[in-house]
Amino acid sequence: MDFFFKPKSVAVIGASRKPGKIGYAVFRNFYENYKGRLYPVNVNAEKVQGVPAFKSILDVPGSIDLAVIVTPAETVPRILIECGEKKVKGVVIISSGFSEVGNKALEERIRDIIDHYGMRVIGPNCLGVFDAYSNADTLFLPSEKLGRPRKGSISFISQSGAVGSIVLDWMSGKGYGVSKFVSYGNAVDVNETDLINYLAQDKTTKVICAYLEGVKNGKKFMNAVRRAVKKKPVIVLKGGRTEAGSKAVASHTGSMAGSDRVYDAAFKQSGAIRAGSMVEMFDYARAMMQPLPKGNKVQVITNGGGFGVLAADQVVLKGLKLAELSKKSREQVKAILPKYAGVHNPLDLVGDADDERFKNALKIVGKDKNVDMILLILLYQTAPLTPCVTDHVINFAKKSKKPLVVCSPGGPYTQLQAKKLEENDIPVFDTPATAVNALAALHSYAEALKE
Amino acid sequence: MDFFFKPKSVAVIGASRKPGKIGYAVFRNFYENYKGRLYPVNVNAEKVQGVPAFKSILDVPGSIDLAVIVTPAETVPRILIECGEKKVKGVVIISSGFSEVGNKALEERIRDIIDHYGMRVIGPNCLGVFDAYSNADTLFLPSEKLGRPRKGSISFISQSGAVGSIVLDWMSGKGYGVSKFVSYGNAVDVNETDLINYLAQDKTTKVICAYLEGVKNGKKFMNAVRRAVKKKPVIVLKGGRTEAGSKAVASHTGSMAGSDRVYDAAFKQSGAIRAGSMVEMFDYARAMMQPLPKGNKVQVITNGGGFGVLAADQVVLKGLKLAELSKKSREQVKAILPKYAGVHNPLDLVGDADDERFKNALKIVGKDKNVDMILLILLYQTAPLTPCVTDHVINFAKKSKKPLVVCSPGGPYTQLQAKKLEENDIPVFDTPATAVNALAALHSYAEALKE
Repeated sequence: MDFFFKPKSVAVIGASRKPGKIGYAVFRNFYENYKGRLYPVNVNAEKVQGVPAFKSILDVPGSIDLAVIVTPAETVPRILIECGEKKVKGVVIISSGFSEVGNKALEERIRDIIDHYGMRVIGPNCLGVFDAYSNADTLFLPSEKLGRPRKGSISFISQSGAVGSIVLDWMSGKGYGVSKFVSYGNAVDVNETDLINYLAQDKTTKVICAYLEGVKNGKKFMNAVRRAVKKKPVIVLKGGRTEAGSKAVASHTGSMAGSDRVYDAAFKQSGAIRAGSMVEMFDYARAMMQPLPKGNKVQVITNGGGFGVLAADQVVLKGLKLAELSKKSREQVKAILPKYAGVHNPLDLVGDADDERFKNALKIVGKDKNVDMILLILLYQTAPLTPCVTDHVINFAKKSKKPLVVCSPGGPYTQLQAKKLEENDIPVFDTPATAVNALAALHSYAEALKE
Repeated sequence: MDFFFKPKSVAVIGASRKPGKIGYAVFRNFYENYKGRLYPVNVNAEKVQGVPAFKSILDVPGSIDLAVIVTPAETVPRILIECGEKKVKGVVIISSGFSEVGNKALEERIRDIIDHYGMRVIGPNCLGVFDAYSNADTLFLPSEKLGRPRKGSISFISQSGAVGSIVLDWMSGKGYGVSKFVSYGNAVDVNETDLINYLAQDKTTKVICAYLEGVKNGKKFMNAVRRAVKKKPVIVLKGGRTEAGSKAVASHTGSMAGSDRVYDAAFKQSGAIRAGSMVEMFDYARAMMQPLPKGNKVQVITNGGGFGVLAADQVVLKGLKLAELSKKSREQVKAILPKYAGVHNPLDLVGDADDERFKNALKIVGKDKNVDMILLILLYQTAPLTPCVTDHVINFAKKSKKPLVVCSPGGPYTQLQAKKLEENDIPVFDTPATAVNALAALHSYAEALKE
């Protein structure tokens, strides 16, 4: 399915000259950011955004990898037949007005056409695809309102277009990186199972996140997840856990949410990690960028005692252990601390810790075989710390084979530093609790791989 | 204890001419932002930051409400005696080097002096006070690194200076408002019980938050909380819940963390709300700005179906109920929705909802007696919405007697709008789950008041 994400040639059917129209935004995305052949198709216009337009995709010269359809629902069957005749490899149908509003006959009609021509189709009633590497982007939401994240390693599939696109915007604000995003809507052809299979073998995807409301074929899906988990973590957020939620699912996408207990058992069996909220899903996903831990022993390093206390509590509550530094490490740490400070876990570098003390502490702890994971509580607000400490942390993480997560709550100054860490795939959290939870998720994935 | 927060006259003992020194930052805060008489005391300088300095507080003309001491630990007893002779009402001792580093004798010495003169003392080993209304501010962390929050209704006390000050910075970044903040350190005199009693009767405080590691006198403290809860909610985050955390507490502040089960029972009995993390504490606190709900029925309004599903799940999981709109409301809602959209709870205004549709939906739901609380999922990313919708929400909330929380995840554009809502005391959350959790906390406080 590479043609959806790295098409050599793209036709936008329903490309529009009018700002505010969906067909305007979709064509504009490709026009501005995409390198490859691009053709607007519009029955009424000679030119679209300065580019000569075609009346039909059949008039477009050469082969087409990807067609994006943004025309009214009733025109879709005819256009899809033309795509079939043109031997288009992949089609994204953005248009809505199918089974989600009760128009099942129209959806059956396009299913028959797809079967006849054997092309692959994402949608209808979806936002389609975004690929941060190729800039393939069928999202019709204006980029000044909906930011696109940087290149990264998290891929995300979502049955709900709104959930998916808002998550992209939220990720862009935080500096989180993404590889591929797919909103697959009514899934008349390409469904969650196909996408898991595809992403499992995709090289720029290190972790797969999925927002699901229902699943078309539970057994096939769980098998796909089981195979994927052997290669990379799969994190799932399931909507419709309760009866009320299931009802909401039915009126939203028309899916059957199914019994939550059945899902829960199936996710566990297949090795998927279940998240309780959108934020939790990406907390876990970001931790998965880190090396896998060899064991469950966490060393906490902090320049604020109270945050160390909260971290120690959470380490124990999540079933992890506090590491005990080796004798050698303890002596080395003692040498970099003020006289009155003790060597414990949490290791309190105390309030006057400067960039250098953090650098040295990381170096010592990084070498200690008694330590499996590092939680660094880095409070940027203290006077001795400069932005250089961020570079020290990034340099340390580049060489370290131990997983590292950072807790750095704060306002604009701290957020700038946190974003820099995130852009280097070092996950940053607002609280010790969420940082420890993410380490626990990483540890449980490492354990699952051993089984 | 008003003299700590609204002193008419302030002396900074150890006020410094050298940027980077604690005595520089503390004097600067008052000099720049505080209206009232202000005196630097410095044994070595004629002038501090352009202001004529005094050798001793005894040389300062007139009476002094508040003295702030930032000199080395060994000088504190002598200075404290001078404060006693001067009949200073309140003293904040920022200086560290007392029981927290094992120097118990020195701490006993200052306790004796306090008893002898009968003045009130906050500290030592603390950050002291911040009052957003009077700008009394003894925090020595540079304001370019540590933002101060706007005027608001949340007061926050913290045994840990780092936790407290970082929280202020984090709040300022989010647009949350604060009334008073106290970091009380070793609590040689003023302790958590005194502060709860004071804040319970403080007019600008609507909700009290506390980060505690240990409590000096459990019975007195719980009685103070019980009395406070009758007037306003008290939300507690307790460090040292586990054995590992308790050990960390001992090496941090030297307190005894005590058994978590005992604390848990005591908090429940006294009506305090317990938070699991710093973020959760302020999620709950922000919801407490809203009117109390009459019952447990939540109406969800959304322009993104998937987020509605997640909200519906969480409403049920937290033991709340989804409201059923009256027949009249249903008819009114039907009239503002597109033909194909149904009237359910979650009420999906669908993706093309504009400012006006949100305004009308809020108006209808706000009047419906079947609705006790409103969760508004407002996804700013869609094309039809403009910043005007924010004003509609603010205007609605000003008049409404039903509590309202908003879920608006997103990047920079959304964050700007969210901050505007926050500045009007409308709490905004990143996920439906956290928004519902906050409503549940508000509901449980309303129920506790009925008992």
